[in-house]
Amino acid sequence: MDVALHFKVQDLNARYVHAIDEDRLEEWPDFFAADGRYRITTAENVARGLPLSLMSATSRAMMRDRVNSLRNANVYESQRYRHAVGTPVLEPVQNGIVRAVTNFLVARIMHTGETTLFATGRYEDRIALPADERPHFLEKTVILDSRQIDTLLAIPL
Amino acid sequence: MDVALHFKVQDLNARYVHAIDEDRLEEWPDFFAADGRYRITTAENVARGLPLSLMSATSRAMMRDRVNSLRNANVYESQRYRHAVGTPVLEPVQNGIVRAVTNFLVARIMHTGETTLFATGRYEDRIALPADERPHFLEKTVILDSRQIDTLLAIPL
Amino acid sequence: MDVALHFKVQDLNARYVHAIDEDRLEEWPDFFAADGRYRITTAENVARGLPLSLMSATSRAMMRDRVNSLRNANVYESQRYRHAVGTPVLEPVQNGIVRAVTNFLVARIMHTGETTLFATGRYEDRIALPADERPHFLEKTVILDSRQIDTLLAIPL
Repeated sequence: MDVALHFKVQDLNARYVHAIDEDRLEEWPDFFAADGRYRITTAENVARGLPLSLMSATSRAMMRDRVNSLRNANVYESQRYRHAVGTPVLEPVQNGIVRAVTNFLVARIMHTGETTLFATGRYEDRIALPADERPHFLEKTVILDSRQIDTLLAIPL
Repeated sequence: MDVALHFKVQDLNARYVHAIDEDRLEEWPDFFAADGRYRITTAENVARGLPLSLMSATSRAMMRDRVNSLRNANVYESQRYRHAVGTPVLEPVQNGIVRAVTNFLVARIMHTGETTLFATGRYEDRIALPADERPHFLEKTVILDSRQIDTLLAIPL
Repeated sequence: MDVALHFKVQDLNARYVHAIDEDRLEEWPDFFAADGRYRITTAENVARGLPLSLMSATSRAMMRDRVNSLRNANVYESQRYRHAVGTPVLEPVQNGIVRAVTNFLVARIMHTGETTLFATGRYEDRIALPADERPHFLEKTVILDSRQIDTLLAIPL
């Protein structure tokens, strides 16, 4: 087992969720390749082989657009997220790319202070490990356990 | 501190909870030795020195029986678990065995999508570290913080 | 990335939360320097630049006093905490000191068994890394996401 690799992935995950949880959303696209893919779906969709997404972006530019929309819609100001992210399970590295599956739980804290367990699920990621840069996501699929979708689900997870 | 050892235990824990959370219950017994022991109890029972268990298995064969029962009773289909597992605190290795104590929080997601914080507590594990195989549990004691026991508690934690 | 350093911080965090969660509160001050600082505040206070604290101690002796008060007030017996703590994000070490930011979620389990998601937020820590001793906190700031403060918030987080 490659300890340094595990650490790189854990560090990437930690920085990723901190950016979201601390409302540094503008940094969110930078965790992806320029043609990186991001998608939120449900375990039920995956089990049924349905290609449905609750949110989808196929480039960093689309992600930036989404962040701009969120800022203009002012949705984000009214709530915060807080992620608990597990230890990733890694597949062997191939061509400088590693696949990782990682559990997450997300709490949502409303402006009133009300705190709920908002979302749970797993990340299925493909991560590039360039020798001279930070690791980043080529693809991140967020698979939610619940089929009950909050209409406010506009903020990346 | 032995970094590689810590990683092995974290990786074992991650694979263990992924198998449960992804409904690959048939793999659950394989995380244990053939004569491995699994037990769920409460912090109150432990504090009082009571040997009571909410679930108990003293071999891999008993674990397989339990999984078969669960599949036949169809209990598992109606719900999912999602674990958040902490960093294990390890004792020094003795004779190729390490003791680990690890925090966990488990969310339960019902078929309707309703998500609740289902169980919290700690794992107290004895883990074998064979040179030529994956680490596995000799003994896993799940100590629940709450005394309030859900009658559906039939799925391993 | 210094893997061994990351592990030291994760191990410190794990031991810290286990001491609280297992009601070994008397050990809590020992995770700090003699003149260590501990403070609980909210994200809203931090964003507004307000120096308000919900709990504050500026030495290990003050922390011991707090534990004694808690024991005499008997508050702690009626509830348990269970922490889920994330992977710390570290800044470069300077003069044997490292800054770490770490996500946490805390469940509270009442004597009745009722379990709720009690608190979420981040730790902002300054950690001393002496060559011949265990790492310990010079300063720990607990920044809560919620502004809704439970009146029972008397136990360290």
